Amino acid sequence: MPDVRAVHWDEQRSALVLLDQTRLPAEVRHLVVEEISVLLDAIQRLVVRGAPALGVVGAYGVAVAMQQGAREGWTAARMSDEIARIASARPTAVNLSWGVARADARRSDGVAAVLAEAHAIAEEDIGANRELSRIGADWVCDRVGHRPLRVLTHCNTGALATAGWGTALGIVRELHARGLIEAVYADETRPLLQGSRLTAWELADEGIPCFVLADGAAASTAQRGLVDVAIVGADRVARNGDTANKIGTLGVALAARHAGIPFVVAAPSTTVDPTVSSGDDIVIEMRPEEEVLTFAGTPVAPGRVRGFNPAFDVTPHDLIAAVVTEHAAVTPTGADVAEILRGIA
Amino acid sequence: MPDVRAVHWDEQRSALVLLDQTRLPAEVRHLVVEEISVLLDAIQRLVVRGAPALGVVGAYGVAVAMQQGAREGWTAARMSDEIARIASARPTAVNLSWGVARADARRSDGVAAVLAEAHAIAEEDIGANRELSRIGADWVCDRVGHRPLRVLTHCNTGALATAGWGTALGIVRELHARGLIEAVYADETRPLLQGSRLTAWELADEGIPCFVLADGAAASTAQRGLVDVAIVGADRVARNGDTANKIGTLGVALAARHAGIPFVVAAPSTTVDPTVSSGDDIVIEMRPEEEVLTFAGTPVAPGRVRGFNPAFDVTPHDLIAAVVTEHAAVTPTGADVAEILRGIA
Repeated sequence: MPDVRAVHWDEQRSALVLLDQTRLPAEVRHLVVEEISVLLDAIQRLVVRGAPALGVVGAYGVAVAMQQGAREGWTAARMSDEIARIASARPTAVNLSWGVARADARRSDGVAAVLAEAHAIAEEDIGANRELSRIGADWVCDRVGHRPLRVLTHCNTGALATAGWGTALGIVRELHARGLIEAVYADETRPLLQGSRLTAWELADEGIPCFVLADGAAASTAQRGLVDVAIVGADRVARNGDTANKIGTLGVALAARHAGIPFVVAAPSTTVDPTVSSGDDIVIEMRPEEEVLTFAGTPVAPGRVRGFNPAFDVTPHDLIAAVVTEHAAVTPTGADVAEILRGIA
Repeated sequence: MPDVRAVHWDEQRSALVLLDQTRLPAEVRHLVVEEISVLLDAIQRLVVRGAPALGVVGAYGVAVAMQQGAREGWTAARMSDEIARIASARPTAVNLSWGVARADARRSDGVAAVLAEAHAIAEEDIGANRELSRIGADWVCDRVGHRPLRVLTHCNTGALATAGWGTALGIVRELHARGLIEAVYADETRPLLQGSRLTAWELADEGIPCFVLADGAAASTAQRGLVDVAIVGADRVARNGDTANKIGTLGVALAARHAGIPFVVAAPSTTVDPTVSSGDDIVIEMRPEEEVLTFAGTPVAPGRVRGFNPAFDVTPHDLIAAVVTEHAAVTPTGADVAEILRGIA
C-alpha cells in the first residue's frame, strides 16, 4: 500500500484531516477540518479532489456537520441545509453526493454510526480499487500483451484521489507489482497540474519510471508508437458508458483511437450513475477563469483577456475500450452499464 | 496593420532588433543582435519564433554574420560555418534555413545586397500573409458560413510569428475586419504558453474577443458546438500535405474531426517543403525537459521525475480540410501539394 492518506479521521481530535494537495509536491501539509465552511472551501479549492476521495470526504463531512451542529446548537433545518451544501459543493463527481447520502442515512443513530459508515466507505473504496486494479491489469495483459508496457494517463487517480490505492493508477501499481511497467507518460493536466504535481509525486515515491508531458503532447506521443495503452479515471459514468473525467480526457481518448491503442476507464462501480442516461445529462463544473490565466499563481495572459475553464469533459462510450470496475471490465456498447454491472455483482 | 514588429533591422545602429517574446506579456523589451552567438541563443530560447519570422531572422542573420566577420577578421571558412549554424539553430521550421540560403546567395554582392534581400523576404512575407488571409477568410465563409464565427487556434501565428501580419491569426484579422469574428478560443499552448502570452496579447490589443483555454479543453469545447472552425499555422508542410506545427496541433485536428468542423492550416507557400515527401521525414525538435517540469523557474514536478518535451507534432494530411497559402486553398489528398501550388502560382 502507498504510504499516503488524502483523507482520514483523527480519533484523538475527533476531526477530519485532509492532505493539502494544492501544496504538493513542494510541501506536505495537512488541514484539520472541524467546520463546514472550512470543508466547503477545501473541496472547492481542491485541497482534496478525485471522485472516490470525495465520496469518503462527503461521508466524514456529515460527522463534521453533526459535531459542529451540536457545539453551535443548529436546528434540524440548518443541519439539513449544511449537509446539502456538502453534497453540492462540486457538481460533476457523483461520489460526493453519494458519500453524503450514505452517511446521512445513519445520522439518526448518532455520530459514531456515521463515522462507522464513513470508515466503511473508505475501506470499501480501497477494496474496490484493489480488485478493479487486478481486473484491469488482467484485461490490459490479455489485450495488449504480457510484457513491460508504456501507459499514458491523465490527471491523478492514485492514492491521493481515493481512500488510499487508486483507480487508473491502481492498475499501474498492479502492473508494476507484476513487473509489467516500462514507463508511465503522465499528462501534466492543466490548469491545475494534477499530473505533474500529484501523479509524478506518487510514482516517483514508488520508483515507477515516469515522464511528465504537456497535455498537447499526448496525441503525437501515442501516434509515434510510444504508448501501449491509455488508462484514466472517471468522475461519473452514465448508463450508456459515456464518461465524465478531468478536462483533457476526451483528447486522450481521441489520441488513443487515432493511434490504435485501447483507451481504458477505471472507476469503482459507485462512479456509475444509474440516474444519468448519457453524457449529455452530466453537469460540467466551470471553474474560475484565473486558473487558466495564471500558472502557479503568476499571471500568464494579458489583463484584458477572458479565460474559459471547464473542469471536466465527456468521452463518448464508443471511444472507450473498457470500463473497469471491481466487478468486471465492460466494453460499453451503449447498453446499460449499470445494469450489466448489477448482473455481474 | 498591427503595430508589432517581432523582427526589424535598425538602420542607424546597423543591427538586428528582436522583440523579446519570452518576456511578453509582462514586459515589452527589445534585444539588439550584433553577434551570431547572441542570435543563436535568441533563436534557441524563442526570443523570436514562428516559422515565417524565423525565415526573416535567418536572412538578417547573414548580414549580422558579415558585419561581425568584418570586425573580427573571420576566414571564409569561419564565415560559412557561422552562417550554417544559423540555418540549423532549430530543425523543424523549414523557413529558417530557407531564409538563410536566400540571403546567403547574395553574400558576394555585399552587406547592402544581403539586407535588401532580407527586407524583400520580410515584405514578401507580409504580402503573402495578407493574400493568404483573404483566401482563407473567403474559404471559411464559403465553407462554414457568412456570419460571426467562433475560431479555435493554437500557439501564436500572428504579427509576432511573422514579418508583421500573421497566418492563421492573419485569417482571423481578415475575418474580424469583415465583421465576422464572434470570438477566438486561444489554446494556451503549453509548455511555453505562446497562446496565452502572445496570441491573447495580440488579440486584446486589437479588441478581438478572446478566450484563453487549457490545451486539454479544446476537444470538448469543439464537441460542445462552441467552435465553427479550427485554424492553425505550420512549421513545415510535406509534399503530401502532412503538416508539422507546434506540439498539440494534432490534438486540435483530431478534436475538429470528432466535432465535425474544418481544420485549416495557414502558411505561406515557402513553408511547403518540396524535399520532404511525408510527415515521417520531418525532424521533430526535442526541447529541454525543464520547460515542462518548471514554470518561470519554479518546479511544478518532484525532482526525481523526467520530462518528455517534443516541440512539434505532425498532423496527417487526411485530417486537414485545407492548406491555405497566398496562391490558393488546397485540400490535401496525398497528391503533391508543392506541385499543385506551383501549377497555380
